[in-house]
Amino acid sequence: MAAANFAGVLVPVLTPFTPEGEPDAARFAAFCRWLLDEGADGLAVFGTTSEANSMSPQERMALLDHLIAAGIPAAKLMPGTGACAISDALALTRHALAHGCAGVLMLPPFYYKGMPDEGLYAFIAGVIDRIASPALKIYLYHIPPVAQVGWSLELVGRLIRAYPDTVVGLKDSSGDWQNTAALLERYPGFAVFPGSEVFLLAGLRKGAAGCITATGNINVRGIRRVWENWRGQEADALQAEITLLRQTMQAYPMVPALKRVVAHFRNDPNWAFVRPPMLPLGAAQSAALLADLAKLGFALGERRQAA
Amino acid sequence: MAAANFAGVLVPVLTPFTPEGEPDAARFAAFCRWLLDEGADGLAVFGTTSEANSMSPQERMALLDHLIAAGIPAAKLMPGTGACAISDALALTRHALAHGCAGVLMLPPFYYKGMPDEGLYAFIAGVIDRIASPALKIYLYHIPPVAQVGWSLELVGRLIRAYPDTVVGLKDSSGDWQNTAALLERYPGFAVFPGSEVFLLAGLRKGAAGCITATGNINVRGIRRVWENWRGQEADALQAEITLLRQTMQAYPMVPALKRVVAHFRNDPNWAFVRPPMLPLGAAQSAALLADLAKLGFALGERRQAA
Repeated sequence: MAAANFAGVLVPVLTPFTPEGEPDAARFAAFCRWLLDEGADGLAVFGTTSEANSMSPQERMALLDHLIAAGIPAAKLMPGTGACAISDALALTRHALAHGCAGVLMLPPFYYKGMPDEGLYAFIAGVIDRIASPALKIYLYHIPPVAQVGWSLELVGRLIRAYPDTVVGLKDSSGDWQNTAALLERYPGFAVFPGSEVFLLAGLRKGAAGCITATGNINVRGIRRVWENWRGQEADALQAEITLLRQTMQAYPMVPALKRVVAHFRNDPNWAFVRPPMLPLGAAQSAALLADLAKLGFALGERRQAA
Repeated sequence: MAAANFAGVLVPVLTPFTPEGEPDAARFAAFCRWLLDEGADGLAVFGTTSEANSMSPQERMALLDHLIAAGIPAAKLMPGTGACAISDALALTRHALAHGCAGVLMLPPFYYKGMPDEGLYAFIAGVIDRIASPALKIYLYHIPPVAQVGWSLELVGRLIRAYPDTVVGLKDSSGDWQNTAALLERYPGFAVFPGSEVFLLAGLRKGAAGCITATGNINVRGIRRVWENWRGQEADALQAEITLLRQTMQAYPMVPALKRVVAHFRNDPNWAFVRPPMLPLGAAQSAALLADLAKLGFALGERRQAA
C-alpha cells in the first residue's frame, strides 16, 4: 500500500458566498490561507461542510483555479471530486490532478439508493482506469448519514486490493466508532481519518492518520493540540476540551452555525451566507450560539482563555 | 392556477449509452420518436428512469439539443432539470425553456437531508425568480424513496399560492397512494401525475392528470388503453392488466430490466448498457425476466396477444 499524502488535522473548508449567492473566491482563498497559518495540515475543500454539492462542477473548478493562483499549495489540497455522474467525477478529478493536488476525496454516486457494491466498484474503477495516473491518490468519503450511500468495509478492502497505490485512505463520517475501529483493524497502513474530532484521540490510539472535521474551520489550534500531544499525559484533558466545543456546535445546524461564528469573529457579515437548501442561522439562534461559545471562553484563532 | 401543458401518459425515457459509456444521442432520438408513435402524450426525459443524475448537466443539455434537432416537438418534452446545485438547476431549466419545452420536472436539491421546507422553498423560488418568464411551467418531482428529500403537502401548497402560473403540477413517485389522494383533494386543478400506472385508474377517478411511469418505456399502448377508457366498463380489467405487467417488472431492478426488454425486442444489445452505479441485468435474470414476460404474452409495441 502506498504511503498516504496527508496526516494530522484536515479542514473541510467552508465556502463563502456573495450576497447574490455566487461563490466568493477572494474570501475563500483568504480563509484557506488563514487555516494553513493556524496550523491545518491539509484542506479538504469541497466537502459536505463546504456546500460542494450546492455548486456546479464548473463553480468548484473555478474556485480551485483561484486557490492555486492565490498561492495555496496543491500539496495541501484534498478537493472533493465525487459526484452522482461519473462524467462529473472524472472532470473534477482530472482537474484536481492537473493542478497537482495531493489527493482527492470521493463520495460514492449518491442519487440511487440500494445499489450493489459491484456498481459502486464499477464507478470508482471507471474513474481510476480512465485517468490511469500513478499521481492519483483517492481518499474514499464515507458519510452515510447524509449521502445515504457509503463504502462498505468489504468494498473498501476490495478497492485497496485492486488499487493499492491509488485508494490510499478514507474519511469516516459515519459517526459510528465501530466502523472506524473496524477499518483501522482490518486495513493497517490505510489512512483512516475520523470525520469528527470527537474520535481523534481514540482513533490515534488505534492508528488513525488524523481527522478531517467541520469544526476545524473554527478550532484548528485546539484540535492540533490533541494531535501533537496524543501520547502525553494531557491527551485526555485536551480531547475533552475539543469534544465539548464540538458538542456545543452540534446543538445547531452545523454549516450555518460555523459560518455564523466565522462572520462574528472576522466581523464580516458576508460569511453568514449559505446557498439553499441551507438557511442562515436566525437572530435568536445566532445569539444563543455565540453565548454558548462565550461560556466556553472560545475566541476564533485565539488560545482558549478560560475553561 | 394555470392550465397544465400535459395530460395523459408520459414516459420518463430510458437513456441509451454506447459501449464506451457515452450517451447515445441517435438511439435516444429514435426511441423518443417511437414512443410518440406508440401514443405517448409526453416525454419526461432526464428522470430517475433516465439515469439523468448519472449524466453531467452538459451531457443532458447536449442530448436535448439533439432531440430538438431530430424533430422531437418541444411541446411534448418535460425534461428533468432539478439538481443539488441551484446553479445547475438554473442552467438546465433555462436551456429547456430556450428550446420551448412545455414544462420541466424538478427534483428538490437532494444531497443534504432534513433541510427545512423553507430551504427547499428558497431553492425553487430562486430558480423561478431569476428566470422570471411566464413561459416557465414547473412540475415538482416527488420521489422520496430515491431522493430521500421530497415536496411536502404543505410546501406544495405554498408554492402553488406563491407561483400559481408557474408551479402547475407534480409527479408523485412516493408510492404512497394516501399522499397522491391528499394532493388531489387539497389542490384541485393542480396537475398531479402518479409516478406509477398502478395508481392510474384510482388517480383518474380523483382528478389526476394522467401518469408518468417508467413502464411506459415498454407499455405505452396498454397504459393508454386505461387512459382512453377509464370511464368505461372495461376500465378495471384494463387496469388489472397493466398492474400485472408493472408488478412483473418490479421483481427486477427496474432500469436495467427495462433496458433488457428494449434490447431484446429491438434486437439491439447496446440498449442493455447502463452507467454505474447501475449494473446490467445478468444472464440468468435476463432469461427469467423474458420468460416472465412471455407468460404474460407481452411483446414490445404489439397489442397483447394473450392474457
